Amino acid sequence: MDLDLVFLGTAASVPTASRGLASALVRRGGARLLLDCGEGTQRQLMRSTGLAELDAIFLTHLHADHVMGLPGMLKTFALREREAPLLLVGPNHLKRFLRDSYHLIGTLPYDVEVVETAGGEVWAADGASMLAIPTEHGVPSVGYVLEEEDRPGRLDVEHARALGVTHGPDFGVLQRGDDVTVEDGTVVRAVDVVGESRSGRRVVYTGDTRACSVVRDASRNATLLVHEATFLQEDIVRANKTNHATAEEAALTAAAADVGMLALTHISSRYLTRDVVREARDVFPGAIVARDFDLIELPYPERGAPQLVPGGGRPTRVAVDPT
Amino acid sequence: MDLDLVFLGTAASVPTASRGLASALVRRGGARLLLDCGEGTQRQLMRSTGLAELDAIFLTHLHADHVMGLPGMLKTFALREREAPLLLVGPNHLKRFLRDSYHLIGTLPYDVEVVETAGGEVWAADGASMLAIPTEHGVPSVGYVLEEEDRPGRLDVEHARALGVTHGPDFGVLQRGDDVTVEDGTVVRAVDVVGESRSGRRVVYTGDTRACSVVRDASRNATLLVHEATFLQEDIVRANKTNHATAEEAALTAAAADVGMLALTHISSRYLTRDVVREARDVFPGAIVARDFDLIELPYPERGAPQLVPGGGRPTRVAVDPT
Repeated sequence: MDLDLVFLGTAASVPTASRGLASALVRRGGARLLLDCGEGTQRQLMRSTGLAELDAIFLTHLHADHVMGLPGMLKTFALREREAPLLLVGPNHLKRFLRDSYHLIGTLPYDVEVVETAGGEVWAADGASMLAIPTEHGVPSVGYVLEEEDRPGRLDVEHARALGVTHGPDFGVLQRGDDVTVEDGTVVRAVDVVGESRSGRRVVYTGDTRACSVVRDASRNATLLVHEATFLQEDIVRANKTNHATAEEAALTAAAADVGMLALTHISSRYLTRDVVREARDVFPGAIVARDFDLIELPYPERGAPQLVPGGGRPTRVAVDPT
Repeated sequence: MDLDLVFLGTAASVPTASRGLASALVRRGGARLLLDCGEGTQRQLMRSTGLAELDAIFLTHLHADHVMGLPGMLKTFALREREAPLLLVGPNHLKRFLRDSYHLIGTLPYDVEVVETAGGEVWAADGASMLAIPTEHGVPSVGYVLEEEDRPGRLDVEHARALGVTHGPDFGVLQRGDDVTVEDGTVVRAVDVVGESRSGRRVVYTGDTRACSVVRDASRNATLLVHEATFLQEDIVRANKTNHATAEEAALTAAAADVGMLALTHISSRYLTRDVVREARDVFPGAIVARDFDLIELPYPERGAPQLVPGGGRPTRVAVDPT
């Protein structure tokens, strides 16, 4: 099943000409999951992957730079006469934010299921689930972990045939992990012909947080860790004071958790991007600093490593309004 | 004094890849005045003229597509440690909107003067004033008229000299409209040496409204009328129902008011821009349909007509974040 992540906004607190406010889109099979929804997110989607009928929106915390795109997006879905229900997940204060936005959003023609969470499973579909994990940002905040179930091991068809399996449906029975009895009465055990179960993929998205053990533990062997990196180590005091992480801290977390790939986001305009890259790579070689519309492809582990496609979220041909 | 207007967002209700949500910047001398503040406005400013320390923000009504950029912008000013006071003007409900946004905006380090208006003067500086005019959009709504005072007529220096004026300061006295007595006791009257007073410039910005007489009257001989044109005439029923104007109605208003220039904005993605242009020009030749970052230069009338500079709001060299 295809899985990728597109960065829609990679700026910290304030947008710049080149970086929008926090948001990322996860696409898994037909599922469209939005992580954070900073001001301008609906338009960033229109400028890249298209504004799909999102299944769910997951907010990490209720600071303006992570949520101000939500009322307008809910309104746009309404103007497009959306009917499909929408799941809206966030930490404590999410419902207050929606109440406060009522005069702007109005009544919606589709159902919105609102879930406030401090941790635990908040969404599941097609063999994957989204877990909220508590983060440390000085306000109610969570990160999110998209985790796939293990997939069954690979059936060794030749070996099964050699043991006497000939009846077509028996191969399916074995693949599902059940034993079969073949024509001569022999029992062929699944465990003898099916390899070890194969692990699924795991994507961790921190939102804003200081470096913390919960993120590190949740990231152990993760396929991809998307970590905030608002500061450089030279400003560690300010990072601590504002409950943010430095690029070095994010890289140390990635190294300790032995993740497959580290992508930094929530990048402040006070630094040159290359300095953020350098600080992270000193600790975790191969770390990348995301830019708007960068795409990360996440194949199943046996098919290859995660792959950064710079600007890959953009359409190959930009639609231009003809005059 | 230089005067221009830069379109920051020209879409109706929903942004598109090429059109942001409603906002326009007026620059007059050193004054920076923002008209409406749709989602994404702060970034549109950053991508074009730069995000200046605005003097005042004028909201036409409290619909999401005209105001969702405000909380983030106020917050950005705070993060930049703005100290200058900000004037914030809008119709009834503006204060409620700010109260509702309190949890997102927090406490600001600068003063915000909030003015709710249904019409009348709301700002003045350097010989110009901003007037609110009541519009018709089914909710509390106003348009805005930037109006310059008449300038004194031009002093005919040669004629004054011929009448015996020699003393330097006397020329200034005459220019201000007062008479002077020259050496031989003759009184030289200002009215004889100073031409007729020269009219200032007037810019009318409707915000969302159905075509209405208040806008038409306020636009009489205006230098520039920026009128919404959400629909084409083929959808007049829907336009009436939603309290919006068609391109034809906007053009009829411009023609009746004999404005110097008509710029249409609030353009729906349901139409091709060229069709909006065609419908307007059938009634008011020379009407333009604004695009994001278009700039209109507004010289004093005696120096020339308003001039559209397509994309003129963009910086000539785009600043790119070096990697």
